[in-house]
Amino acid sequence: MAAAAARHSTLDFMLSATADCSAILKGLQSIFQEQGMTETIHSWKDHGYLATYINKNGSFANLRIYPHGLVLVDVQSYNNDVKGRDGIEHLLNQIEERVKVLFHGSIKRVKRLPAIGRGEAIDRYWPTADGRLVEYDIDEVVYDEDSPYQNIKILHSKQFGNILILSGDVNLAESDLAYTQAIMGSGKEDYTEKEVLILGGGDGGILYEIVKLKPKMVTMVEIDQMVIDGCKKYMRKTCGDVLDNLKGECYQVLIEDCIPVLKRYAKEGRMFDYVINDLTAVPISTSPEEDSTWEFLRLILDLSVKVLKPDGKYFTQGNCVNLTEALTLYEEQLSRLYCPVEFSKEVVCVPSYMELWVFYTVWKKRTEV
Amino acid sequence: MAAAAARHSTLDFMLSATADCSAILKGLQSIFQEQGMTETIHSWKDHGYLATYINKNGSFANLRIYPHGLVLVDVQSYNNDVKGRDGIEHLLNQIEERVKVLFHGSIKRVKRLPAIGRGEAIDRYWPTADGRLVEYDIDEVVYDEDSPYQNIKILHSKQFGNILILSGDVNLAESDLAYTQAIMGSGKEDYTEKEVLILGGGDGGILYEIVKLKPKMVTMVEIDQMVIDGCKKYMRKTCGDVLDNLKGECYQVLIEDCIPVLKRYAKEGRMFDYVINDLTAVPISTSPEEDSTWEFLRLILDLSVKVLKPDGKYFTQGNCVNLTEALTLYEEQLSRLYCPVEFSKEVVCVPSYMELWVFYTVWKKRTEV
Repeated sequence: MAAAAARHSTLDFMLSATADCSAILKGLQSIFQEQGMTETIHSWKDHGYLATYINKNGSFANLRIYPHGLVLVDVQSYNNDVKGRDGIEHLLNQIEERVKVLFHGSIKRVKRLPAIGRGEAIDRYWPTADGRLVEYDIDEVVYDEDSPYQNIKILHSKQFGNILILSGDVNLAESDLAYTQAIMGSGKEDYTEKEVLILGGGDGGILYEIVKLKPKMVTMVEIDQMVIDGCKKYMRKTCGDVLDNLKGECYQVLIEDCIPVLKRYAKEGRMFDYVINDLTAVPISTSPEEDSTWEFLRLILDLSVKVLKPDGKYFTQGNCVNLTEALTLYEEQLSRLYCPVEFSKEVVCVPSYMELWVFYTVWKKRTEV
Repeated sequence: MAAAAARHSTLDFMLSATADCSAILKGLQSIFQEQGMTETIHSWKDHGYLATYINKNGSFANLRIYPHGLVLVDVQSYNNDVKGRDGIEHLLNQIEERVKVLFHGSIKRVKRLPAIGRGEAIDRYWPTADGRLVEYDIDEVVYDEDSPYQNIKILHSKQFGNILILSGDVNLAESDLAYTQAIMGSGKEDYTEKEVLILGGGDGGILYEIVKLKPKMVTMVEIDQMVIDGCKKYMRKTCGDVLDNLKGECYQVLIEDCIPVLKRYAKEGRMFDYVINDLTAVPISTSPEEDSTWEFLRLILDLSVKVLKPDGKYFTQGNCVNLTEALTLYEEQLSRLYCPVEFSKEVVCVPSYMELWVFYTVWKKRTEV
């Protein structure tokens, strides 16, 4: 049985405020009626009209006429084949032409958005971190599994390659070397013979890039084996062959929660030249119940700084550049660590994110001599 | 008077195919009724239900229940204040909770998209070249004028700075130095003491960057004075002060159609080291009536190659990487010029485009000696 899916089309007109609601209704209703659609009209005293048109084939349309000249047309159709699409485009074209003929002088704007697919087998809508609606060019669900920790999806984008989406958040696409380079210090660091600790990073991108640079030893601590399993199979442009084994000449991958590992290293006095936190985005909520998230972030930061050599560097991603409040809160955490730190930040365009992203470099404040 | 604007919210459920349509309707209708909304139900024999709920305040909701478990909720509201928004979020939360209680075991997916603003004074929806719906973080209309050639908008994006939009196409944002660098040859060219011709380029970005590189002479031919007027005022991060005068020490700007200028130069035997075509995107239509567009493109190409020194280079932007058919057609034109040429292409991430973009380098084929 074919999966149920609908297509929602819109066509909006902004007319001058003096436009006559009932004239608009009268001008357009025949178009729907000619399609054999059944009309139901509701009118408000002060809020204009809603006309609903129902088609025998299961599709329907709303014509909502607001006072002051806003006219919104919605067509929802179950029939998602090419013929059905053409029919709806034809209907919208007719409406647009009619409005242009009847209200020519009073049209301020006509807007037709790309139709929205609803309930499709492949979900192409993955809003940005700052809450904007964006449609991706996704054409295949490559991997979709629930691990004990999160939902893991790998979806194929025509332009970005495979995209890793963890619990609904776009994490990294095969196009996103810019992300990996930014969280490694944007090419300004020398990793040769260095000790590196990666927190998270299950897609393998950071590990793959650093291993190329002849480090002494890279330890990656990723809690979710299933992320590694999915990425080593479907994100090979990102991770190469580095996840095929959990141990290599100059690296090891620990499948563990990073908190106890960090505590163990801190206790043992084990130190790193670089700690790269690739765990999670900064939470955007500032409500009291979220305090624990910031405490968790601070715990990670404190432990990371503890295992950092005096001249070591801590790299992490921050958030999208528009979430200024969350970025400020993050920076406040940096001023509350057990030892004083300084930081710099950089704004980077990560192709698959569709928004600019902030990356942080943190280091222990040098004591003035 | 406040401008008319509406807000369209959606909430979609994919339930297992055995879900009972009338049970879903019965389970949800009380939520709408508790809001004082008036119900109208239409039922199809084979296509499920459409329930329309009308509120006294002018807002309304559709509950469309398709067979095989697709349930789509739409709420459209005229009342675009915070209180109204909260009310709708609350309504959608109630529906989501109820569905989760009643149909817990059969929910395959729940999807709530960011609400769509319709008829707002600031239009934030500018689809990509490959036809995807994307919402920009636009918060101000900086400039909006019709020139004799096109509609010119400059809109302010929180993250990208001001964005130039020509007849609905996103052209360039202040964040998009990557575009200018790509169409100049990605930093691999030496412009010192070179003769450069820019076709179009009214935002001044290319001119501004090349003038920094001590060329002998840059000639820019832009047809639309109003683009220059808008950009020199509102795109200063892109063009600096280079458009403040149409003539500088090593550049001149001609406000002219580039075709007669190219013909004049070709006739005079005037030659350039670099010709940079920043005119228009490749047309995506391949229908017969569009033949003239390709002929126009080929005319520009032929004339440009004519005024190119034997070792000169022609740079241009192509199209978004997904429009492979248009790209292929463009490359076919390159094989049909008056003299044989070779070309290379590069895919670049231009921040404000929200899609990867192809840039071309074209040069005269060297004759084997």
